[in-house]
Amino acid sequence: MRTTAGELANFLGVQLVGNAERILVGIAKIEDAGPREVTFIANPKYNKFLFTTSAGAIILKTAPKEEKEKGKVVYLISADPYSTFLKTLEFFHPPEPKQPPGIHPSTVIADDVILGKGVSIGPLCVIEEGVRIGEGTILRSQVFLGKKVIIGKDCFFHSRVSVREGCEIGNRVIFQDGAVIGSDGFGFAPQESEYRKIPQVGKVIIEDDVEIGANTTIDRATMGVTRLCRGVKIDNLVQIAHNVVIGEDTVISAQSGIAGSSSLGKHSMLGGQVGINGHIRLSDGVMIAAQSGVNRDPGPNKIIGGYPAREITLWRRIEASISRLPEYVKRIRQLEEKLKE
Amino acid sequence: MRTTAGELANFLGVQLVGNAERILVGIAKIEDAGPREVTFIANPKYNKFLFTTSAGAIILKTAPKEEKEKGKVVYLISADPYSTFLKTLEFFHPPEPKQPPGIHPSTVIADDVILGKGVSIGPLCVIEEGVRIGEGTILRSQVFLGKKVIIGKDCFFHSRVSVREGCEIGNRVIFQDGAVIGSDGFGFAPQESEYRKIPQVGKVIIEDDVEIGANTTIDRATMGVTRLCRGVKIDNLVQIAHNVVIGEDTVISAQSGIAGSSSLGKHSMLGGQVGINGHIRLSDGVMIAAQSGVNRDPGPNKIIGGYPAREITLWRRIEASISRLPEYVKRIRQLEEKLKE
Amino acid sequence: MRTTAGELANFLGVQLVGNAERILVGIAKIEDAGPREVTFIANPKYNKFLFTTSAGAIILKTAPKEEKEKGKVVYLISADPYSTFLKTLEFFHPPEPKQPPGIHPSTVIADDVILGKGVSIGPLCVIEEGVRIGEGTILRSQVFLGKKVIIGKDCFFHSRVSVREGCEIGNRVIFQDGAVIGSDGFGFAPQESEYRKIPQVGKVIIEDDVEIGANTTIDRATMGVTRLCRGVKIDNLVQIAHNVVIGEDTVISAQSGIAGSSSLGKHSMLGGQVGINGHIRLSDGVMIAAQSGVNRDPGPNKIIGGYPAREITLWRRIEASISRLPEYVKRIRQLEEKLKE
Repeated sequence: MRTTAGELANFLGVQLVGNAERILVGIAKIEDAGPREVTFIANPKYNKFLFTTSAGAIILKTAPKEEKEKGKVVYLISADPYSTFLKTLEFFHPPEPKQPPGIHPSTVIADDVILGKGVSIGPLCVIEEGVRIGEGTILRSQVFLGKKVIIGKDCFFHSRVSVREGCEIGNRVIFQDGAVIGSDGFGFAPQESEYRKIPQVGKVIIEDDVEIGANTTIDRATMGVTRLCRGVKIDNLVQIAHNVVIGEDTVISAQSGIAGSSSLGKHSMLGGQVGINGHIRLSDGVMIAAQSGVNRDPGPNKIIGGYPAREITLWRRIEASISRLPEYVKRIRQLEEKLKE
Repeated sequence: MRTTAGELANFLGVQLVGNAERILVGIAKIEDAGPREVTFIANPKYNKFLFTTSAGAIILKTAPKEEKEKGKVVYLISADPYSTFLKTLEFFHPPEPKQPPGIHPSTVIADDVILGKGVSIGPLCVIEEGVRIGEGTILRSQVFLGKKVIIGKDCFFHSRVSVREGCEIGNRVIFQDGAVIGSDGFGFAPQESEYRKIPQVGKVIIEDDVEIGANTTIDRATMGVTRLCRGVKIDNLVQIAHNVVIGEDTVISAQSGIAGSSSLGKHSMLGGQVGINGHIRLSDGVMIAAQSGVNRDPGPNKIIGGYPAREITLWRRIEASISRLPEYVKRIRQLEEKLKE
Repeated sequence: MRTTAGELANFLGVQLVGNAERILVGIAKIEDAGPREVTFIANPKYNKFLFTTSAGAIILKTAPKEEKEKGKVVYLISADPYSTFLKTLEFFHPPEPKQPPGIHPSTVIADDVILGKGVSIGPLCVIEEGVRIGEGTILRSQVFLGKKVIIGKDCFFHSRVSVREGCEIGNRVIFQDGAVIGSDGFGFAPQESEYRKIPQVGKVIIEDDVEIGANTTIDRATMGVTRLCRGVKIDNLVQIAHNVVIGEDTVISAQSGIAGSSSLGKHSMLGGQVGINGHIRLSDGVMIAAQSGVNRDPGPNKIIGGYPAREITLWRRIEASISRLPEYVKRIRQLEEKLKE
């Protein structure tokens, strides 16, 4: 894709300061951008790059007064530089032509499957009895949908995703490669010295606009439902156990795990490698630092960290004290000696 | 499935208190159950729900003296309410009709594979040369079995499981979706500035009645055997490295990892996200709290936690002290000032 | 494979002390080896087994003066016992006959794919438009290669690996089963109360001689490149986020995670379950203990540990102090009481 700064400003509906004839061919981060690339400044901490970047064009809120070198760079003025940048990104990287509708002949599909308009099923998938797929949904390759799975509209399945029997998926849900939805919950009844498997007869319900990361696993409920509410975003290699509920628009970073029957509120954020104990119910708006271990609800909108997790300011003070612990130990010893004297 | 309380009591072989004609259609947890659902109380901490639940029937040890409202609820009296509930669960959720025996025509299978009676191989599997599969074993879909893999009787493979060349699986082993058995151990010999791959020529042996979670990985031994003994239960996204041995009836929760050449004893329990160092040998009956890091054997039947893991009572006291560390630091300062005076 | 000690010494080009006619059939670790097996001592800490092992032959630097029992064991003398042992391992476990070149008829492959000499593509793979595969590369089974993926020479893909559209793989790269390369980075722009997906238009580049573990996930860059440099070795269930760079010959153990836009230097080593914060740049030669959380660069060749990670000697001292924290608290109380008096 090759354009001029003027054409791009026009497309974006923004004001241009500088040479409208400048040729632009792509986008890049401000540290990396070259003279034919567009970049942006949304966060003031990147202002330091303003006069050092080699970018051909910068999307930003206001053009700097002192210009770097007349004509060297084009400013694209936007009240919301980040959104304008996203549009620019889509300009240079238009979405791939959609996988054409239809069923690849190599796919194994039961006779009674019901497909909406425009559904596209790629090669080597397995679609079992009683499955329903809503219009516009795309299965890339080697996907498995178990018996009676229900899929909404405009979902996208990357390669090698499994959705087990009876699970229900909303609209516009995206699955990265290798994700597993509806595996058995980890439930065993102790029998003298052995364990007996507890049948896992529940299901998983994933609501609209959720995204699930690569190789993430979401267990079905023992009874009832494991539920991911509207807008939840889950990164790679995350474990969601049986009967967990994740509130709307909550974001969970890679390698975190939520133990059985716990729930997260709405608009919460989990860093990477966080662990949430079983059978606890967290409030809305909780933010949890990476690698924390959470065993009780801190209350709404709290920011917590550590193992076990505490309010983040307390945790930071504890951290600081821990770093100097050997010094404090010395001071206790000195006090003891002085007192002996 | 629709029944009356009387028919159900009959099927379960338990005493009924209340209206035998009550219609029941399913099961649920006591918090969730409605008037046509059966629930149970096995743990006294759920007694609080006894008079507030909307359940149609409750399985429990003894009927309460004061009845809620005559005829409102049916009590099913059992000496072991949990086991009776499991039977009820199987009553309302009879196991799916088994996948019919035979090999799906889309599966790619070597000529010399030996199959026991009633083996069922679903679509798009790959079964390489020299594989043997015991009677009654079921492969759901898109499973990979490498050269000379040996599988016992009545195993169940969910979708997209891989068992690599030469590994041996016992009877009644269950694999959740995406599990990998027999991937190469992580072994490299340092060569000046590079690493040279050490051939991984061992295998994995999984004994009877083991269950393996979704997307869990179990590496083959460098030489010899990585072994999961009878009755081991492993959750999702767990890492078992080369040459590890897991003792009988040990339970490992999600996202835990056991480093190379370590062994766990029998009847041990690991919480989620636990890490076990390489080359250590743990005693039987050890219980390890979630997110702990273990670098030595605590001795038989110990309960440990923390990083590095210590006896749980010590760890709890340490935890408590850590929480008040900033306060102690202040008190040290005060002591120092007083002494100056 | 069955040989005599003399023939083996000859093959290895090493001196033999003892009975050249001794029959040998395989290899084992010194603790496990039987009278027809070869073992080795490279690390002096295994010298304790020298007179107790049942091994038929031992590869070591120098034969012990006092012989165990004349003729009982054969010594194979090597200046580099470990390398000699690796040759022995390859002698008893010659590499499997290579998968024959060609494309399995069950594989779905686009018309315009370009294959080098000797490429072998196993059953039930999906190879999309515009893919190029270098000579000698082997795909085992059920592999997915997205549009325009470029693969170098002599790579090996175990079962069920996915490489997403546009990613580039060097020569001699090994993928364990279930690995995912090029899944979307975890990027969402907050929009009032919801999140909007940021298109992930970058790619992953993997250089020569890299190995990727089972079910490991490596995200494509948001823009630009996620890069694994030459010789990097990555264990199972590791998460590499968007725009991460891993320096040459760096080794990452299982279940570690590197957050977005961070970079690791060359010749670094990460233990298991390590977490690296986003947007940090680590120096070369850093070694990080298992389960550590790293939020800043410690400088070149530092050894660090803990959460957050500190220099390992400081961390060990802190650890020791933490273990005795309840005792210190008691001592502070005693000091306070004495001062009151």
